[in-house]
Amino acid sequence: MDFKNLHINGKRLQSTLEEMAKIGATPGGGVQRLTLTDEDKQARDLFVKWLKELELDITIDEMGNIFGKRAGKNNDLPPVMSGSHIDSQPKGGRFDGILGVMGPLEALRTLHENNIQTERPIVIVDWTNEEGSRFAPAMVSSGVWAGALERDYAYGRTDINGLTFLDELERIGYRGKAPAKKWPVHAYYEYHIEQGPMLEREGLIIGAPKGILCLHWYDIYLEGEANQVGPTPMEGRHDALCATAEMILKVNQLPDKMGGNMVATVGEIQNYPNSRNIIPDKVHFTVDIRSWDDDLAIRAWEDVKADFEAIAHSRGCPIKIEETWRVEHSPFDEKLVQRVLKTAENLGYSNLHMVSGAGHDASYMNQIAPTAMIFVPSIGGRSHVEVEATTWEDCEVGGNVLLHCLIQSANEN
Amino acid sequence: MDFKNLHINGKRLQSTLEEMAKIGATPGGGVQRLTLTDEDKQARDLFVKWLKELELDITIDEMGNIFGKRAGKNNDLPPVMSGSHIDSQPKGGRFDGILGVMGPLEALRTLHENNIQTERPIVIVDWTNEEGSRFAPAMVSSGVWAGALERDYAYGRTDINGLTFLDELERIGYRGKAPAKKWPVHAYYEYHIEQGPMLEREGLIIGAPKGILCLHWYDIYLEGEANQVGPTPMEGRHDALCATAEMILKVNQLPDKMGGNMVATVGEIQNYPNSRNIIPDKVHFTVDIRSWDDDLAIRAWEDVKADFEAIAHSRGCPIKIEETWRVEHSPFDEKLVQRVLKTAENLGYSNLHMVSGAGHDASYMNQIAPTAMIFVPSIGGRSHVEVEATTWEDCEVGGNVLLHCLIQSANEN
Repeated sequence: MDFKNLHINGKRLQSTLEEMAKIGATPGGGVQRLTLTDEDKQARDLFVKWLKELELDITIDEMGNIFGKRAGKNNDLPPVMSGSHIDSQPKGGRFDGILGVMGPLEALRTLHENNIQTERPIVIVDWTNEEGSRFAPAMVSSGVWAGALERDYAYGRTDINGLTFLDELERIGYRGKAPAKKWPVHAYYEYHIEQGPMLEREGLIIGAPKGILCLHWYDIYLEGEANQVGPTPMEGRHDALCATAEMILKVNQLPDKMGGNMVATVGEIQNYPNSRNIIPDKVHFTVDIRSWDDDLAIRAWEDVKADFEAIAHSRGCPIKIEETWRVEHSPFDEKLVQRVLKTAENLGYSNLHMVSGAGHDASYMNQIAPTAMIFVPSIGGRSHVEVEATTWEDCEVGGNVLLHCLIQSANEN
Repeated sequence: MDFKNLHINGKRLQSTLEEMAKIGATPGGGVQRLTLTDEDKQARDLFVKWLKELELDITIDEMGNIFGKRAGKNNDLPPVMSGSHIDSQPKGGRFDGILGVMGPLEALRTLHENNIQTERPIVIVDWTNEEGSRFAPAMVSSGVWAGALERDYAYGRTDINGLTFLDELERIGYRGKAPAKKWPVHAYYEYHIEQGPMLEREGLIIGAPKGILCLHWYDIYLEGEANQVGPTPMEGRHDALCATAEMILKVNQLPDKMGGNMVATVGEIQNYPNSRNIIPDKVHFTVDIRSWDDDLAIRAWEDVKADFEAIAHSRGCPIKIEETWRVEHSPFDEKLVQRVLKTAENLGYSNLHMVSGAGHDASYMNQIAPTAMIFVPSIGGRSHVEVEATTWEDCEVGGNVLLHCLIQSANEN
């Protein structure tokens, strides 16, 4: 059968996205649908209702991951999977995550109404707590499912109010009985907004990342000496915030110093006692370094760490450094990435072989199955903000690429 | 009558300070006795009990200021006054403020037990909310009493929990009936720890500040562009925290650039959204500039303001600047300052003519009466911290200087 003229229904995809965007809608035009909140539950209920309309086989596992399985001709073959996440950042956007759940839903609806049966089953999935903004770390439930993280570690994570992941999972009624445990997967596709400016800058529509950058997180703690600012001469001060300011600039200059191909950021800072007339005596800040080149990222860290120690020494501010998290760069399955590019090509869409700077559930899936992602442009490169947007046309284009990739993978023997 | 051999009782002063230090004692050896809290009330009750033991005429005014008046031979003459504050910083020390209330109390006890009657009355005072750390701004009740601030402005100030000054003043039972309104004062002395390192550095015991430095407070607001850090190239970022880091260093370098004789500090910073994987899009920070030379402080501000604007421009981060508070430098009464130095000299104590970098209730009293301060050394120059300390010997020395200054001023016609 030739599916060349098969297309998803762009209007219907738009309408499901608009329905979802009402849940947790913010005055600024975004959504706030933090994981395991009432808003998350409401969106899950709607998603499950839609899965039922397609007569899918629904499973909810002990991490609250929701799977909808569409039978194939041969259900003994490992399925093709596609999904992302329903949860959002605080004051996040209407596309991050949810596009990767509504996209495959639309693809399955298209197969359904055209009575197309694939060889292999196709499974759509919503992963619990991808964002990690309520319960750190991010991507925790795909991590548990893929066997990279422990279930009880995830259960015990707490939010800023001290509520645990487990209690909140039970409270919203989404602690399923199925074990959160991987099964053989033939191929995994994650459809997502780019969250960066590259596609827009190049004037292209479909991005196929060759993989995800490595990710290094560091936590820096500095000590200074608190004193009333007025009577304390500049000479002899130990100002932990001034030391931090020097370090922030070193981090900012690092990619240029190392010759590019990396990003480095200080996103978070806590200053104590944080009073306008007391010299800061304690600062905590974070460093985030990402690169395709793991060695470059390590060398960059060693370089900036030496700078940190020199600054701490010259300011008389003792420093403590924690290497919080390191994930190596994760190259996707080359065959599957090429399939995304080629499928876009065949459908007449411009495309780009690129990298993903952001982490995704696809990172953990990539450890257990051939994995690829499909990116569509983020307007202005904006994401994790209320103004995050992608045109409906681009959402439809990405949906078509996903549909055809799913069909190809699901019809492989 | 020759009072040359009259001395306070150092042990008794120590014991009153130790009693007070129990109220709001912190595990770190300091005190936390924020204004109008239960701890403040407890300390006030103890202070009033001690005033009653001396049979003083006690008045509590509508700002909660507590006055204890010891009659003179001629009670029609304006009194001599001395006092400071009972409240502390959060995790503050055992000397800041309270020494200036227990010091004159000890002086009056000494006069009392020696049956010494002065010509003029002597009034001891505890000013409500000198610190300003619970209800901004600082020194508010001496300000109202001296006529520089409005009572209802002070009443309406709120703490971080939204409680008002007035409600809390009533709750602890210290809203008195007497109007908070200045009366003629012959001389005002405030006994205080130095809160800086000068006396210790010079190896001297008594400091007599010629006045208080000018004080300029600024609030800076920067905007950047929030984006996921991974997929956002360094080029084209608008990172409000990086712009802030550059500005913090400019402030830190400012005194040196302007040729000294000033201090400049960034003590407070709020960063948004303050998430390790989002580029900061909003920062608020404060600038505190102090100098004996008002013009120099203004020129320094103009200089650093131009730097701020250039940095904001080059980083593409719009800046908003608020000039929050400006107090000109405040020279004390030269005659009274000389009296402090001379009295120390006569009693055989080493002494230093200096300046005060910190603001004090003496600033407002200085607007309505001849005013001077008596400083004793802060160990390591530390203050506003739990380890703040002054030796008991130095506390006694300062108490003796205060006693003799009070006698001299109170015996003037």
